[in-house]
Amino acid sequence: MRLHVVNPNASAAMTEGIARAASAAAPPDAAVTTTGAAGGPLSIEGPVDGAMAVPWMLQRIEEAERAGCDGHVIACFDDTGLDAARCVARAPVVGIGEAAYHCATLIADRFAVVTSVPEALPVLRGNLARYGLSARCAGLRAAGVPVLDIDAGTPEALAAIRRETRAALETDGADAIVLGCAGMATLAATLSDEFGCPVVEGIAAGLSLVGALAGAGLRTSKRGGYAAPRTKAAQ
Amino acid sequence: MRLHVVNPNASAAMTEGIARAASAAAPPDAAVTTTGAAGGPLSIEGPVDGAMAVPWMLQRIEEAERAGCDGHVIACFDDTGLDAARCVARAPVVGIGEAAYHCATLIADRFAVVTSVPEALPVLRGNLARYGLSARCAGLRAAGVPVLDIDAGTPEALAAIRRETRAALETDGADAIVLGCAGMATLAATLSDEFGCPVVEGIAAGLSLVGALAGAGLRTSKRGGYAAPRTKAAQ
Amino acid sequence: MRLHVVNPNASAAMTEGIARAASAAAPPDAAVTTTGAAGGPLSIEGPVDGAMAVPWMLQRIEEAERAGCDGHVIACFDDTGLDAARCVARAPVVGIGEAAYHCATLIADRFAVVTSVPEALPVLRGNLARYGLSARCAGLRAAGVPVLDIDAGTPEALAAIRRETRAALETDGADAIVLGCAGMATLAATLSDEFGCPVVEGIAAGLSLVGALAGAGLRTSKRGGYAAPRTKAAQ
Amino acid sequence: MRLHVVNPNASAAMTEGIARAASAAAPPDAAVTTTGAAGGPLSIEGPVDGAMAVPWMLQRIEEAERAGCDGHVIACFDDTGLDAARCVARAPVVGIGEAAYHCATLIADRFAVVTSVPEALPVLRGNLARYGLSARCAGLRAAGVPVLDIDAGTPEALAAIRRETRAALETDGADAIVLGCAGMATLAATLSDEFGCPVVEGIAAGLSLVGALAGAGLRTSKRGGYAAPRTKAAQ
Amino acid sequence: MRLHVVNPNASAAMTEGIARAASAAAPPDAAVTTTGAAGGPLSIEGPVDGAMAVPWMLQRIEEAERAGCDGHVIACFDDTGLDAARCVARAPVVGIGEAAYHCATLIADRFAVVTSVPEALPVLRGNLARYGLSARCAGLRAAGVPVLDIDAGTPEALAAIRRETRAALETDGADAIVLGCAGMATLAATLSDEFGCPVVEGIAAGLSLVGALAGAGLRTSKRGGYAAPRTKAAQ
Amino acid sequence: MRLHVVNPNASAAMTEGIARAASAAAPPDAAVTTTGAAGGPLSIEGPVDGAMAVPWMLQRIEEAERAGCDGHVIACFDDTGLDAARCVARAPVVGIGEAAYHCATLIADRFAVVTSVPEALPVLRGNLARYGLSARCAGLRAAGVPVLDIDAGTPEALAAIRRETRAALETDGADAIVLGCAGMATLAATLSDEFGCPVVEGIAAGLSLVGALAGAGLRTSKRGGYAAPRTKAAQ
Repeated sequence: MRLHVVNPNASAAMTEGIARAASAAAPPDAAVTTTGAAGGPLSIEGPVDGAMAVPWMLQRIEEAERAGCDGHVIACFDDTGLDAARCVARAPVVGIGEAAYHCATLIADRFAVVTSVPEALPVLRGNLARYGLSARCAGLRAAGVPVLDIDAGTPEALAAIRRETRAALETDGADAIVLGCAGMATLAATLSDEFGCPVVEGIAAGLSLVGALAGAGLRTSKRGGYAAPRTKAAQ
Repeated sequence: MRLHVVNPNASAAMTEGIARAASAAAPPDAAVTTTGAAGGPLSIEGPVDGAMAVPWMLQRIEEAERAGCDGHVIACFDDTGLDAARCVARAPVVGIGEAAYHCATLIADRFAVVTSVPEALPVLRGNLARYGLSARCAGLRAAGVPVLDIDAGTPEALAAIRRETRAALETDGADAIVLGCAGMATLAATLSDEFGCPVVEGIAAGLSLVGALAGAGLRTSKRGGYAAPRTKAAQ
Repeated sequence: MRLHVVNPNASAAMTEGIARAASAAAPPDAAVTTTGAAGGPLSIEGPVDGAMAVPWMLQRIEEAERAGCDGHVIACFDDTGLDAARCVARAPVVGIGEAAYHCATLIADRFAVVTSVPEALPVLRGNLARYGLSARCAGLRAAGVPVLDIDAGTPEALAAIRRETRAALETDGADAIVLGCAGMATLAATLSDEFGCPVVEGIAAGLSLVGALAGAGLRTSKRGGYAAPRTKAAQ
Repeated sequence: MRLHVVNPNASAAMTEGIARAASAAAPPDAAVTTTGAAGGPLSIEGPVDGAMAVPWMLQRIEEAERAGCDGHVIACFDDTGLDAARCVARAPVVGIGEAAYHCATLIADRFAVVTSVPEALPVLRGNLARYGLSARCAGLRAAGVPVLDIDAGTPEALAAIRRETRAALETDGADAIVLGCAGMATLAATLSDEFGCPVVEGIAAGLSLVGALAGAGLRTSKRGGYAAPRTKAAQ
Repeated sequence: MRLHVVNPNASAAMTEGIARAASAAAPPDAAVTTTGAAGGPLSIEGPVDGAMAVPWMLQRIEEAERAGCDGHVIACFDDTGLDAARCVARAPVVGIGEAAYHCATLIADRFAVVTSVPEALPVLRGNLARYGLSARCAGLRAAGVPVLDIDAGTPEALAAIRRETRAALETDGADAIVLGCAGMATLAATLSDEFGCPVVEGIAAGLSLVGALAGAGLRTSKRGGYAAPRTKAAQ
Repeated sequence: MRLHVVNPNASAAMTEGIARAASAAAPPDAAVTTTGAAGGPLSIEGPVDGAMAVPWMLQRIEEAERAGCDGHVIACFDDTGLDAARCVARAPVVGIGEAAYHCATLIADRFAVVTSVPEALPVLRGNLARYGLSARCAGLRAAGVPVLDIDAGTPEALAAIRRETRAALETDGADAIVLGCAGMATLAATLSDEFGCPVVEGIAAGLSLVGALAGAGLRTSKRGGYAAPRTKAAQ
C-alpha cells in the first residue's frame, strides 16, 4: 500500500519532521511518501495562510494520484482544503485533525484538544462542529506556545503542554487528549504514560485511518459533494 | 459610502452582469465598484474551483481595502473564501449566500433555496449548517439548469425555475424563496409578483446588508477567528 | 424611506432616549419616527411585562403601517412580540436583540452579550437558541446594574459594564461585544475604542438592518408563520 | 387537589367543551375548574390572537392562584403565554401541547402531530424545537379542517383526520399520534382502537401531568426564567 | 391503580429503602409494589453493571405485567434498560432519571443535577442528550460521596451535597435541582426549604409521572421502537 | 496483531458466516478470531434481544482480553453493548455500525443506510444521533427482507436491496451506501460496481478501523465513561 502525506505548509524543515513522524507511524504494509506545498506560505496560521496553501497542496495530491497512491493524509491540524482534496482524489483522503477526533471518540467518551496558540482555536472549533463531534469535546486548550518552540522542545513549551493536559483531564473532565499540532507528535507516548490516558496524535491517526479505508477497499465517492471538478474551457 | 463587489469567478462576462445587478441594487448613498478574480477558474462549480479562486479574490479585496472601501460583497452563492476574506479586511465582508439567508429569516418563518444544478447543493447545505440556519430552510432545490442557460434566459430555464419555486412553496411549505445563483438576480421581482411571496436575491441582499453594517459603523473584528494574518519571513 | 421605532416599554423618558439614539443612528435616507407602548407596563423586566406590553405595541405598529412606513424596529432587547409584529406588518420588522446578534455574526467569529441584570438572561438565551446563533455566542453576562443606573451613567454602572466586557473578551474568548440593553447605546463607541473590538448596539443595528431589508425591496411574507391574522366575528 | 384549566380563547362554547373534556379526564383526587379568557379574541389562530389573549389569560391564572389552586393547564395547543403564566404562578403550569409531547415521548419512540389547519403548524414546530423534542417528532400534519367542523364532528372532518393519522403511521413512521387541537379530544379513544397505537390528547395529558407535579409536591421555581414579575411604580 | 417499582440493583437493603420512599411518594389512588433485580450486580456503577442487571430487571417487569400492573418505574437514575423495558411492557414505563428531568423542565427554565460520584456523570450526560434536554441542564455536579455514605446520612455527605447544590444555583445559574441518586430521596424536602427552590427527586417524580400516564389511559406503543420482541425458535 | 470479532447473536451459522467475512476482510498483519455469544438469543432483533445478549458477549470480550487480543469488533449493526464492552476492555473496541458510519463520512459527503427490516431502523437512528452523524445521513431505508432471506441470497432479497440502494442515491441524494446488516457483507463489491459509488460494509470497516486504532497504539481510556467496572463484594 502506498500512502501519501502532504504538508500544506511550505517549510521544508517542517516537512522533514512530518516525514520522520510518518515513517515511524506508518502501517506495516505501507510505503509512505511525504511532500510539502512548496510555493505557498511557510506556515499555516489562520484562514488566509490556509487559503493560499490549498492550490499548491492540491497539486501534490494530483501528482500522487497520478503516481497511483492508495491514500492521502493532509498533515495540518486545520484539515486545510479537505473538501477540495477529496474532489481531486479517487483514493481516500483524511486530515490529521479529523483523524485524531474520530479515533478519540472510539476510545474515550470525551476528549480535549491541547494545541499551540489561541489563534488556532477558532478553526478547530468550527471543524469539530462540522464533523458532528462538538458534544464529545470536553475542552479546547491552547498552551500559548509558538509552533517553533514546540518543535525545539524547550522546557517552557513542555511545561505549558503538561499544564494544559492536566487541566483538560482534571478541570474539563476529558478522558483522552488530542494533541492539536503536528509538532507535538513525538510527545504523545510520554504524555500518555505520564497521565495514564490515551493521547492521540494526528499523523499516526491519519496514516492508520487512511490505511484502514484503503485496506477495506474504500475510495472517495465521485458523486455529490466530492465529485471531480469539471474541466473548464480555456480562458 | 464606497462598496466593493468581487466576483470570485474569472469570467469577464459574468463580472459585467454582476456589475449591472450591483448598480441596480446599490444603496442610495453608495458608490459600487465590481471586480473579478481574473487569473482563477472561469466559473466556480464546486470546492476545487472555489479553492483555486480564493487567492485571486483575496488580492481584489486587499486592493479595495487599500483604496479605502467601506464594505465588500463576495458575489458567489457558495460564499467562497468568506473567512479568509474577513481576515484580510477591516471593512465588513458578506457573502451573497449568507446575506440572502439572513435576510430571508428576518421576513419569513421558513425559506427554500432554488439554485441551478444539483452539484451546487452540498456546499449550500454545509453553509446553512455553519450559519445555524438549517432549521429555517424548508428545502434545497436545483432546477437542473446550467448557469449559462439561466444567464441566457431560455424558456426551458425559466420554466424549470418556476416549477421548483412552486414545489418549494407547496410541497416544502416555504414562506419565501432564496434564489441560489447570481445569474437569477433579474428574476426576483417577476417571481415575487407571480407567486405572491418574498423572493430574495443575493446581490441586492449582500449590498444592502454590508451597507447596513458600514452605516452602523461596524467593522470586522481583528480578534480571534478573523484576526489579520501574520507576516511571514521571506521564504 | 420612513422607518418606525417602537419602544414596547411605556416609559416616556425611555422612549425619548430611544428617539435620540434612533435619530443619531438612522440611515442617511431615512426619516425615523419613534413611538412608545403607552398603556402597557412602564418597563419590561421579564415575560409577564413583555406579554402585557405586546397588545399596545401592536397598535403602534398597525398605526405606522397605515401611515405607510417602510420598516419597524422593536426597541427592546427581548425582541418582545416579534412574531406577532411580523403578522400585522407588511413592511419588514426586526428586533434590536435579533439585529445585534445577526450583525455580530457577520463581523466576528464569536460574540458575547453584556446586559444589565441577571433576570434578563433567560429570555436572551432562549432567543439565541431560536435564532440558531447559540453556538456563536461565547458568553452571556449581566453587569448587575439596574437599567435606570445605566441610563444615569453612574460611575459604578460604567465600571461594572467595563468589567464584564473585559471578562467576555479575556475569559469567554469573545471577538466582539453585543450591548444587551437599549440604555447602553451611547456607550458603544467608547467601549469599542477602549477595547479595540467591535461593540454592537441594537438600535443602530436594528435601524440599519431594517433599512437594508426595505432598501432591497423585501417585505414580510404573508404566507405561513407570519400570515396576517384572520378577522374575527364580533364577540 | 384543585386544578384550574384556562381556555385562552374567549369563546364560551369552546370553554364549555373544554370543561366537559376536563371533567372526563380529571385525576380521581382532583376537582377541576375551567375558565375562559373572556375579553380576548374568540379563537386563537396565530401569534397575534395569542398575544392578544395572554393578558386576559394571566388574569384567570392570577385569580385561580389567589383561590388556592394546585395546578394550571393552558388549554390551547399553541401553549399560549406559557412562560408568562409560569411567572405569575406558584403552582405548576403546563400547556396541553407541551403535555402531549412529553407524554408521547414516554410511551413511543417517535410520534406525529395531527392538527386542524396548516396555519397552526409554524407555532407547533417552533414549540417542539424549544422543548428539545423535534427529533422525536416524525411528522407534523394538518387535516385541512377548520376547528368548528372538528367540533361539529362532520363526516368530512373525521375522514380527513383519519387520512392524516394513517399517513403519519405509514408514511412518516410514527409510533404514536398526538392530536394537535383541543377539539379533537373526544376522538382519541376511537382512533387509538382503530389504528392500534397510542393517541395522545392534550387535555387529559395536561391534567394528568400537572396533577403529577402537584402530587409530587413540585411548584414553579421563582428563580431565574420564571421569577415573579417585579411590582412597577404607578404610571 | 397498581404501580410497580423495580430496583435494578440487587441489594435487598437498597430495595427496602426504595420501597419506603415509594410508599411515601405514591399517588393516592395507587398501590405500589417494589421488587429488586436479585441475581444481578449488588449496585449499578457504570455501563457493565447496568448491562448485567437488565436481564434480571426485565424478568421483574414481565412478572409484574402478567400480574396486571398499570405502570412501571425503573428506580435507578441511569434509567437502566429503559428501551428494552418498554419493549416487554404494555403498561407505561418511566425511569427515575428521565422522570426527574421532564418534571424539572416543567417547573424551571434550567435545572442542575447533583449526584453522588463523578463516575455517574457520563451516563447521565448521555441520557440528557438522548432526551433532548441538554440545553435545559445548567450543570452536572457530583458531590464526591459514595452511595452508602449518602444512605447513612453522614454529616460529611450532607455537607457535600449542600455545597454542590449551592454552587449549582449560584455558579451554574440553575433554577431547580434534580437529585441524581435514589438514596437522596429523603433530602429533597429539606433542601427545597433551605435553598428556596424546587428540588426534584426521581422516585416521587417517576411514580407521579407513570401514574399520570396510566391515569390518562396511555400505554406503551407496540409499533416501531418499542415493539414487543419476536419469539425465537428454540436454540 | 490479534483481532477478535464477537457475534452478539448466538446463532452458530451466523457466527460462521461472520468468521468467513472477517477472514476475507482482515488487515494483512492481523490474525482474526471470531466468537459467538452462545447462551443468548439466537438473533438480535430489537432492544430486548440486545439486552439479553450483552452479558454473554461481555464474557467473550473478557476471555479475548485475557488471551491478549489487540482489538475487538462487535459484529452486530446495532452496536449492541458498545459502552459496556469498552468498559471491560483495554484494547480498542468498535461496533460494525459505528465503524461503517465513520468510514462513510470520510469518503462521502452524505451516506444512506440500507438495512433488512423496518424494525431495525429505530436503534440505528438513535445510534446515528448519539455519534453526532445524523446530519450526514441522507436516508435510512429498510429493504423489507428478513435476515435469513438475505443470507440465502434469494432473488427477491437482492432485488429489494437494489431497489432501496437506487432510491437512496436518486431520491435521498446519498453519495455512498452503508449496508446495515452483517448478512449483506458479500454484496458490497457487486453493488459498488453496479451503482458506481462506495458501498461500506461493517465487518470490513470494523476490522480495518480497530486495526488502525491498535496500529496507532491507541487503547480504550480507563477514565470517565469507559472506566473499568468496580469489583463488587460477594452477594
